[in-house]
Amino acid sequence: MDTLILIYCLSFSVYLIGLRIAILEFGKPKDWLSKAFDIFILALIFLNLVAVALETVDPLFERYQGWFQSFEVFSVIVFTVEYILRVWSCTFKPHYRHPFWGRVRFIFTPLSLIDLLAIIPFYLSLLPTELRIGRTLRLFRLFRVLKLNRYTDSLRILGRVFRLKQEELLLSLFVLSILLALASSLIYFAEHSAQPEAFSSIPKAMWWGTITLTTVGYGDVYPVTLVGRMLGAILAVLGIGLFALPAGIFASGFSEELQARKAKKRGNANKTCPHCGKVISEE
Amino acid sequence: MDTLILIYCLSFSVYLIGLRIAILEFGKPKDWLSKAFDIFILALIFLNLVAVALETVDPLFERYQGWFQSFEVFSVIVFTVEYILRVWSCTFKPHYRHPFWGRVRFIFTPLSLIDLLAIIPFYLSLLPTELRIGRTLRLFRLFRVLKLNRYTDSLRILGRVFRLKQEELLLSLFVLSILLALASSLIYFAEHSAQPEAFSSIPKAMWWGTITLTTVGYGDVYPVTLVGRMLGAILAVLGIGLFALPAGIFASGFSEELQARKAKKRGNANKTCPHCGKVISEE
Amino acid sequence: MDTLILIYCLSFSVYLIGLRIAILEFGKPKDWLSKAFDIFILALIFLNLVAVALETVDPLFERYQGWFQSFEVFSVIVFTVEYILRVWSCTFKPHYRHPFWGRVRFIFTPLSLIDLLAIIPFYLSLLPTELRIGRTLRLFRLFRVLKLNRYTDSLRILGRVFRLKQEELLLSLFVLSILLALASSLIYFAEHSAQPEAFSSIPKAMWWGTITLTTVGYGDVYPVTLVGRMLGAILAVLGIGLFALPAGIFASGFSEELQARKAKKRGNANKTCPHCGKVISEE
Amino acid sequence: MDTLILIYCLSFSVYLIGLRIAILEFGKPKDWLSKAFDIFILALIFLNLVAVALETVDPLFERYQGWFQSFEVFSVIVFTVEYILRVWSCTFKPHYRHPFWGRVRFIFTPLSLIDLLAIIPFYLSLLPTELRIGRTLRLFRLFRVLKLNRYTDSLRILGRVFRLKQEELLLSLFVLSILLALASSLIYFAEHSAQPEAFSSIPKAMWWGTITLTTVGYGDVYPVTLVGRMLGAILAVLGIGLFALPAGIFASGFSEELQARKAKKRGNANKTCPHCGKVISEE
Repeated sequence: MDTLILIYCLSFSVYLIGLRIAILEFGKPKDWLSKAFDIFILALIFLNLVAVALETVDPLFERYQGWFQSFEVFSVIVFTVEYILRVWSCTFKPHYRHPFWGRVRFIFTPLSLIDLLAIIPFYLSLLPTELRIGRTLRLFRLFRVLKLNRYTDSLRILGRVFRLKQEELLLSLFVLSILLALASSLIYFAEHSAQPEAFSSIPKAMWWGTITLTTVGYGDVYPVTLVGRMLGAILAVLGIGLFALPAGIFASGFSEELQARKAKKRGNANKTCPHCGKVISEE
Repeated sequence: MDTLILIYCLSFSVYLIGLRIAILEFGKPKDWLSKAFDIFILALIFLNLVAVALETVDPLFERYQGWFQSFEVFSVIVFTVEYILRVWSCTFKPHYRHPFWGRVRFIFTPLSLIDLLAIIPFYLSLLPTELRIGRTLRLFRLFRVLKLNRYTDSLRILGRVFRLKQEELLLSLFVLSILLALASSLIYFAEHSAQPEAFSSIPKAMWWGTITLTTVGYGDVYPVTLVGRMLGAILAVLGIGLFALPAGIFASGFSEELQARKAKKRGNANKTCPHCGKVISEE
Repeated sequence: MDTLILIYCLSFSVYLIGLRIAILEFGKPKDWLSKAFDIFILALIFLNLVAVALETVDPLFERYQGWFQSFEVFSVIVFTVEYILRVWSCTFKPHYRHPFWGRVRFIFTPLSLIDLLAIIPFYLSLLPTELRIGRTLRLFRLFRVLKLNRYTDSLRILGRVFRLKQEELLLSLFVLSILLALASSLIYFAEHSAQPEAFSSIPKAMWWGTITLTTVGYGDVYPVTLVGRMLGAILAVLGIGLFALPAGIFASGFSEELQARKAKKRGNANKTCPHCGKVISEE
Repeated sequence: MDTLILIYCLSFSVYLIGLRIAILEFGKPKDWLSKAFDIFILALIFLNLVAVALETVDPLFERYQGWFQSFEVFSVIVFTVEYILRVWSCTFKPHYRHPFWGRVRFIFTPLSLIDLLAIIPFYLSLLPTELRIGRTLRLFRLFRVLKLNRYTDSLRILGRVFRLKQEELLLSLFVLSILLALASSLIYFAEHSAQPEAFSSIPKAMWWGTITLTTVGYGDVYPVTLVGRMLGAILAVLGIGLFALPAGIFASGFSEELQARKAKKRGNANKTCPHCGKVISEE
């Protein structure tokens, strides 16, 4: 059992790092040193994510508690050094040229705030405060994953897709929330008397609504009356259609974005079909 | 627990209103006052929806019963005033110019009937009738969400997509209902003797059919015999293919409609590719 | 309860018939009489489907047994008369001109065989045989739904899509069955010792495989060991990708077919874009 | 029961072989003899897959143990002869002309290694070793399905689609694993105290994460706290959007690949639309 967990962890981190290296090829050409540094920081971020996950496995934590703490200290030192160097050297960029105000402005860029958020909880935990912070600290360590934004395009692509399709996504989310509210209200009126526990209120019925309309269907709550089942059946069919909307919008935005990137790489980013305005791909 | 519910409600309504404001940008340019009025009515509609949901949470209702009732009275007054003003001022539009018949015709437009439906149940509940109406009244208050039609495009887009794709949707719904009827009948014959309770009749087997073919899969009913499982497996694979049809039709209609809207905004609504008839987008 | 079932049945059949009438508009223009006849036969087919379903509801069957039997006799008489008239009058078509061999050839066309299959089980049940046939008879009555092929395009469209995309569908079904076989075998080796009942053999593990890979997920069987869960998780992610293939192929074929129909109606069936070969639509 | 299992097996293998023959039409024209040989080997591979599955059905194995063993010996002999002939005759191909090094190089091609892997476990099991190998042997026999690569295009198409879309697939898998890690960590912090058993650690919470985000939803683990349910609902909606990405990428790659194949068959593989670069199809 223990061996298996270790195999699992190892294979998982290897998988993640392998994936990363493969994706790095997406990026711009760089010299050997900065590439090595990038991979080192990336690996550290991933190992942090893995460490947060593994610390919650009690037998592992009890046995390797020292290692976990050393790793955390090591990570924080590396990230702190990285942060200090970044703030120190930001004046090289023309935009942050001013020795003081340039650095202040740099500190308040989103990426730098993320870098700060990745290390400050550790230093706060060193202060003599209540013990409760330990748990929250671990939660904050999860945000280190946001540091990936600086090193990989993948999360940035995601962000760009969300921006590109935001009107469609907001519109469909709005329609979804209306449908969800209506569905949950109707099922509440149908099922409340038959299952006063599971459908005790409309907000609680929304749990049923989300789980049904996303077709997850755990089976912890489901209608049992005839009217409730008819409603549920109709809503499930409707739900597939409407809850597939944001997924479809997002998927099409993602594929458009990737095609545009590919076209850019090949150097014909601006070539679009004169007739239908589509970006020309040469596959 | 209680605090959490409140946070939940607040964040939910904030989310909805934020969403609304974002979507308002879709609409036509308006002067400041009518925009403020629109947002006020929109917020009121949403708060009504939220109030209907929260009234069903017993601890909340017991503690804030007075507030809920005051809010309901306030809403009805606002909606009544809005309704009276609308009926009064409709004669400004050339189509409803006649002082009496114009107003009568206006009252019987769908949007006005919805406005009336949003307030009349409250006045009916004031009459000295049986107590049963209280529950139905709450159900009717849900229809206030239909008032959104006047203030937002999102539901109208939905309606237009349904109209645009109605032939395809009807056709696929028809095929679905045939498949559902056949699947439920076959599984009934296979499982009836093994599970006389869950598959007691074909209409009851349709519950299994819908939940399986939509891939919700609660797990309250499932085949246990060999023949039933083979049938179920084949039908599940088929079902994905066929039940994904209306979703796909709807999603493509929705994206076409949104693209047409975007094109209209940019002022090139009528430009279509001379070769394939697609609306030209300039992204 | 009883009233609800009746409302349910009525609304269901009304829904079906309404749907039918809407779809009839798809067909070719016909004179009033043959249209009325078509609607009558269509309604009869649907009522047969409804009757088969309702007969299985015990309280309904006990109370209205006589009505159900009369309706069955009436249906068989109508279908028999229709069948005899069809066979009699087929000689009007040039293809079946010969008084004897033309009729024989007509009888062995698929549509005529379906017509025969719809009535012959009833006559067989009149013969003095064992009682077992009663159940099978009911099953055969389901095949009456195939008579719809003659009166509606919807099932024919489905058939044409299957023919148009058969290579792709067969190929993806083949890949699916290989994936299913591998997935079920692997999970069997992982879970057999932990759950000897649920994963007693590879064919039985296929039930898990189908229900998981189609994302239905009843929850009657699921892996519990670490290896099994890792396998299950990987297979579930893979499964979505692969089991969505036939659905996607079918949906795209369906939408192509519908677009071609629409184009045909408008009289520009042969106009295709000279550049990309797509059928031109004028929406 | 027993009869049913046999019917099941027979229909299953008939289905597979029928499918295969249909798919063979995809391949290049060949003379009668080599086609017959191909079908023989294909049928043998499938029957091996079926035999592996059926051996795990205890009543079948006990009754037909001899047959299963004879079939295994027969299969291994055929595959061995095939392997020896292939190695022997590979010198006919110019690439492997050298009598010794050509054959060595041929042996280390992936397809030949698969052929070797399909037979070597059997010979290993003949050596006097511990009994444990019996089980692993059966697992290895599953890899015989990889021999299909030589005889059918279907798996090769799959492989080509994976290669064609590997950047997109890796990118979306990377995003998925980040989302999965975050979702599982968040739900762990929300649910750990309420359900210390089901959400005992983050790696264990990943089981919940995968099953929810793929919308399988077995229902063995689900959030019960308010915060957990809100998180779960939001993640489920997000999950549909993101987990549908690889499926969509794969499906579009598959359909592109199939269209290119069709175009190649018709002899216009190189004709692409001069405007949008799409392969022209003449349907």
